[in-house]
Amino acid sequence: MSLTTPAYAIHSPTQPLEPWSLERREPGEGEVLIEIDFCGVCHSDLHFARNEWGFSIYPMVPGHEIVGRITRVGSGVSKWKEGDRVGVGCMVDSCRTCPSCLAGEEQYCDSGSTFTYNGKEKDGSVSYGGYSTQITVTQDFVVRIPDALPMDATAPLLCAGITTYSPLRHFGVKPGMKVGIVGLGGLGHMGVKFAKAMGAHVTVLSQSERKREDALRLGADDYLATGDGSVFETHASQFDFLLDTVSAPHDLNAYLGLLKLDGQMVVVGIPDPTPVSAFSLVLKRRSLSGSLIGGIRETQEMLDFCAEHGIVCDIEIIQMEQINEAYERMLKSDVRYRFVIDLAGLKA
Amino acid sequence: MSLTTPAYAIHSPTQPLEPWSLERREPGEGEVLIEIDFCGVCHSDLHFARNEWGFSIYPMVPGHEIVGRITRVGSGVSKWKEGDRVGVGCMVDSCRTCPSCLAGEEQYCDSGSTFTYNGKEKDGSVSYGGYSTQITVTQDFVVRIPDALPMDATAPLLCAGITTYSPLRHFGVKPGMKVGIVGLGGLGHMGVKFAKAMGAHVTVLSQSERKREDALRLGADDYLATGDGSVFETHASQFDFLLDTVSAPHDLNAYLGLLKLDGQMVVVGIPDPTPVSAFSLVLKRRSLSGSLIGGIRETQEMLDFCAEHGIVCDIEIIQMEQINEAYERMLKSDVRYRFVIDLAGLKA
Repeated sequence: MSLTTPAYAIHSPTQPLEPWSLERREPGEGEVLIEIDFCGVCHSDLHFARNEWGFSIYPMVPGHEIVGRITRVGSGVSKWKEGDRVGVGCMVDSCRTCPSCLAGEEQYCDSGSTFTYNGKEKDGSVSYGGYSTQITVTQDFVVRIPDALPMDATAPLLCAGITTYSPLRHFGVKPGMKVGIVGLGGLGHMGVKFAKAMGAHVTVLSQSERKREDALRLGADDYLATGDGSVFETHASQFDFLLDTVSAPHDLNAYLGLLKLDGQMVVVGIPDPTPVSAFSLVLKRRSLSGSLIGGIRETQEMLDFCAEHGIVCDIEIIQMEQINEAYERMLKSDVRYRFVIDLAGLKA
Repeated sequence: MSLTTPAYAIHSPTQPLEPWSLERREPGEGEVLIEIDFCGVCHSDLHFARNEWGFSIYPMVPGHEIVGRITRVGSGVSKWKEGDRVGVGCMVDSCRTCPSCLAGEEQYCDSGSTFTYNGKEKDGSVSYGGYSTQITVTQDFVVRIPDALPMDATAPLLCAGITTYSPLRHFGVKPGMKVGIVGLGGLGHMGVKFAKAMGAHVTVLSQSERKREDALRLGADDYLATGDGSVFETHASQFDFLLDTVSAPHDLNAYLGLLKLDGQMVVVGIPDPTPVSAFSLVLKRRSLSGSLIGGIRETQEMLDFCAEHGIVCDIEIIQMEQINEAYERMLKSDVRYRFVIDLAGLKA
C-alpha cells in the first residue's frame, strides 16, 4: 500500500476544505500504519479550520476521531498486528516522561501533547488528521475497539466520548447523584448516556423545548428548557454535578446557582471568558472546574465501558465531499448528534 | 446588670458610626448573655455599613468577631457558666434542621443562617453585633476560648481565622503541598499562619514588595510581588493550592495559571464578577471554588488548633470612638493586620 494518502485540507481560514494529498511516513520503531475507515467531525475541527483560537497551521487536515484497521507495523511493535480494529483520538504523542504522562494523563503533558492535527510531531513536521485515508502513529497512542462496537458510531467516542466520560469519572459521578448535562450536542448527548450508565439521575438543560423528546429517548430522566430563565430559580441548589458542554457564551453564574452545597460544575467547551461572581461560589462552597479530553488508558477504559453498556454515538454518515456543507449545518446545530465521514469514497 | 447596652451604630450608608444604645433580651431557654471585651473590625463591616452589597438594614451595629465572658445563663443552659471565656462569630443562629446544619455547616444553612448583625432573629427582630458591650446568644452558637489564647488577639479568629482555616482544611492542605496566599491583609496573614502550621510550603503573593518582610516574619517560605505580571510566567503551573483573600477586582485567570494539574484556587473575598477563561480551567483540570466562614464545630476546632500551635491574629487595639478613622485606614490597607476594639471604654 502506497504511503501517498488522499485527504481533505483547508488552506486558509476563509476557504472551504478541498481535496489534497499528503505523504505518510513508513511506520518506524514502535509505530503502526492505520487504514482509516471513519472519522468523526468535531466542533473543534471548525474552530481550528477557521483559526478561531489563533494558532492554526495551514494547510490543515482536521480530524481526531479516527477508527480503522492496522495495515502495517514497524519494528518492535508488540501490541498490535495487521487487521486489528483500532482508534486514534486527539493526541498522537507526548513527552512520556513528565508526571502527567507517567500518570497516564498525557492530555496534560507538561510539554504539551502532540495533537493529532495542527500539532508538531517530534521531528518538527506538522501533524495531519483523520480527514484522510491512513495515518502513521506510535503504538502507544492507539486504542483497541472492542468487537461489540460498530466502527462508524464508535469514531466520535475518541473525542466526544472521552471528553465527557473523563470528567464524569474523575469527579466521581455515581448512583444517587443528581447530574445535569448542559447542552445537548455531540458532547452533551454522550454525557447523558455515560451519566445514566454510571447510575446518576440525569437532567438535560437546553435552551428550548426542541430537544426534549431526544433527551428522554437518550436516557435522560428529566429535561429543563432554560430559555426564559425561570428554571434557575425553581431548581436552585438542586444539582450535585453539572457537565457544561456549551461552547457559546452563557451565564455561568446562573448554572452555578443550580448546584447544591459542594456541588461541582465542569466545563468541557471553550466559550469566551465569562464573568464569574464570587458569591456564586462562596455561598455554597461550589466549584467550577475544567477538563480536557482524557488519557490513553482512560480512553481504552471508556471504550470498554461502552462495549459493556452498549453505548455508541448517535451519528449521521457523510461522504468526504460533503464536509463543507456539514460544517455549515454544525453551525446551526443541525446534526443529531455527530457527523461521521465514511472514508471509503476517498479511497476509490 | 442592665440589659440596656451602649453601642456604636450607623444610620445610613453615608454617615459615620456614632454612639447609640440598644436593649438586649433577657437570656431565654438555652441562651446566654455575654459581656463583650473585644470585637475585631472586619472588612465586611465596612461593606455592610456602606451598603455595598445592597441588603443593609439601618440602624446597624456591626461586629462579628466577638470575645467576652458569660455573665448570665438562661434556663436549660448546660454548656456554659458565668465567667466562661467565649467567642461569637458571624452567625448567632440557623434553622438547625437542614442537611447543612445537621452536618455542622450552619454557614450553608438552607434557610440562611442568622448573621450576628444585619440579620433577622427568629422573632423577626434585627440582630445587632459586637460594637456593643454585651450580647444575648443561643448557647449553641458560642465557642470556648482556650486558656492559652489572649482575648484581644483572639477576637479576629472568629471571622478572619475561620474563613481561612476552613478552606485550607476542607480542601485538604497538607505537608508537602505548595500553597499560595493571595493578598496579605486580615485574612491573608491568618492564611499564612494556618497553612504553615498545616505543614505546607507557603508563598505570599502581593502586589508590591512592601509586605515582603512581614510575610517572611509571619512564616511564609517565599514571597512574590505580582505587580509587573512577570511572576505569572515564571511561576506558571507551580502551585497545588491558592487561597485568594483579595476583595478588590483582580485577574483570576492570571492566578489560575499558577496552578498545577488538578490545582485548586479558593476565593474567600467577594470581588466584583470577573471574567474566567475556560482555557485557564480546562488545560490543567484546575478548579475555582469559594468558601464561606466555617461551621460552629469547626470554629471550635480552629480555636483549639490555634491554642495548640500558638497562633493568634496580629492586631492593633483601638477605642470605640476611633472606629470611623479605623475604617478610613482599612480602605488604605493601613493596618497590620486587624483592628480590635477594646470595649472597656464604652462601659465606663
